[in-house]
Amino acid sequence: MRIAFQGERGAFSEEAARQLAGNAAEMVPTLRFEDVFNRLRDKTVDAAVIPIENTLHGSVHENYDHLLHYNFPITGETSLRIVHNLIAPPGIELTDVKRVYSHPVALNQCLQFFLDHPEFEKVSHYDTAGSVKTVMESGMRDAAGIASAVAAEIYGAQILQRSIEDDRANFTRFFLLRRRGEESEVAAPADGIWKTSLVFTTCNQPAALFRALSAFALRDLDLTKIESRPLRGKPWEYLFYLDFVAPRHSIPAQNALRHLAEYADLLKVFGCYPRGC
Amino acid sequence: MRIAFQGERGAFSEEAARQLAGNAAEMVPTLRFEDVFNRLRDKTVDAAVIPIENTLHGSVHENYDHLLHYNFPITGETSLRIVHNLIAPPGIELTDVKRVYSHPVALNQCLQFFLDHPEFEKVSHYDTAGSVKTVMESGMRDAAGIASAVAAEIYGAQILQRSIEDDRANFTRFFLLRRRGEESEVAAPADGIWKTSLVFTTCNQPAALFRALSAFALRDLDLTKIESRPLRGKPWEYLFYLDFVAPRHSIPAQNALRHLAEYADLLKVFGCYPRGC
Repeated sequence: MRIAFQGERGAFSEEAARQLAGNAAEMVPTLRFEDVFNRLRDKTVDAAVIPIENTLHGSVHENYDHLLHYNFPITGETSLRIVHNLIAPPGIELTDVKRVYSHPVALNQCLQFFLDHPEFEKVSHYDTAGSVKTVMESGMRDAAGIASAVAAEIYGAQILQRSIEDDRANFTRFFLLRRRGEESEVAAPADGIWKTSLVFTTCNQPAALFRALSAFALRDLDLTKIESRPLRGKPWEYLFYLDFVAPRHSIPAQNALRHLAEYADLLKVFGCYPRGC
Repeated sequence: MRIAFQGERGAFSEEAARQLAGNAAEMVPTLRFEDVFNRLRDKTVDAAVIPIENTLHGSVHENYDHLLHYNFPITGETSLRIVHNLIAPPGIELTDVKRVYSHPVALNQCLQFFLDHPEFEKVSHYDTAGSVKTVMESGMRDAAGIASAVAAEIYGAQILQRSIEDDRANFTRFFLLRRRGEESEVAAPADGIWKTSLVFTTCNQPAALFRALSAFALRDLDLTKIESRPLRGKPWEYLFYLDFVAPRHSIPAQNALRHLAEYADLLKVFGCYPRGC
């Protein structure tokens, strides 16, 4: 199985792809999120893994927009604790380091580490794993990157200091996507718990969202996430992306979806998958 | 009155500040959103104007997070159609232009223009208005910027082509902020319509959001926006930012707020202001 993900080899998305598809899957690093979706559409890969939300930063809105546009089925989810490590070429010691490369978001998540090491210069880079790649390929002997442990392993680098992030409650949630009609039978989860994800619009009336949520509340279906996004071409109207805990074809879920369809101008179910977080 | 906004002189936020406070207000361009909030806190300005959402891109999440943290009262709102113009030094003609500078978001909102002009090289810049400033100060005779009409006026440049954006349904909504206790009496709106903005959390239970929204739906209060943001330190729990149409101290709004408070662990009202969009 070939899986596309955004970023360089060793990106957090690659760790998520390994969790979702096993180590035997072939990893296809891809420059932009849009290219990840295009590769799945163009059948140059069998699956894709995308980040959808982070517990510090919130949703990856670009990927919500792509989910709607490409309409690939979600067949799995997982979450990953984002652990930032200081990584350098073998033989380099902490006292050799003068410059630290990483993506600006990662640099900003290690503020205490940089307060403890005022001698380090922060250098913005396009990618976390890419910062390790760059440091290794350039032959620099006074630089380090900040990235995942997998990045150190892939580029043959060493971890100088583990878990230098400020906030340990830093998790990212990922979706596994396939193509419509190619959803292989997803194995039933050990705990029997499924989630279903969808998007809908409501008419722009008072209580419209309240009525839409009644479809779930009246059937005791637990919502785990709701996200609003602007509706293109209709200023100040919104799409709502929603996840609930139930298999899509269970009777309560079918009743809720039929009920929601009475109010929704648009209703698309993206998929049903074993709960991963 | 001194008003801080993010960006260079001529930024869209400056246009919004003029709409909200009149042309007599002194404009204080500021580097980052956080600095805008800090200036208001440190009393080096009397007010601040921040963008909160755009109809193509969605919410400015950083500013939602700052609203919660700084807790300044919202005393006004307005919206602006985002019109991108090609702007160059006086005497330059369209056929002289080789490079076009602007913020990447603005460059991406003028894709058809660049398809029509394949001879133009796109150059990413830190700011829309700043691209006009840079082109004017550098003395370049083959470059233009993409920015607001106000930017052309401020830097003494000329508009080569107006309204080159792809999508005209491109609006940004702005808030006017003051300090607590310094909310001057806000003038009543001509149409008598007020909006109230707040943030709340719910307990993590089935139907929690449905019950929270019932506080508004049962009183026929119209919600115009709901935005979820991750709750720091509680992975997969959320804050909800909500706007509704009613003056805060009206009886239905007071009843709704009292009702919502029964379910909400946290409930903060940011302010009540004349509806601007």
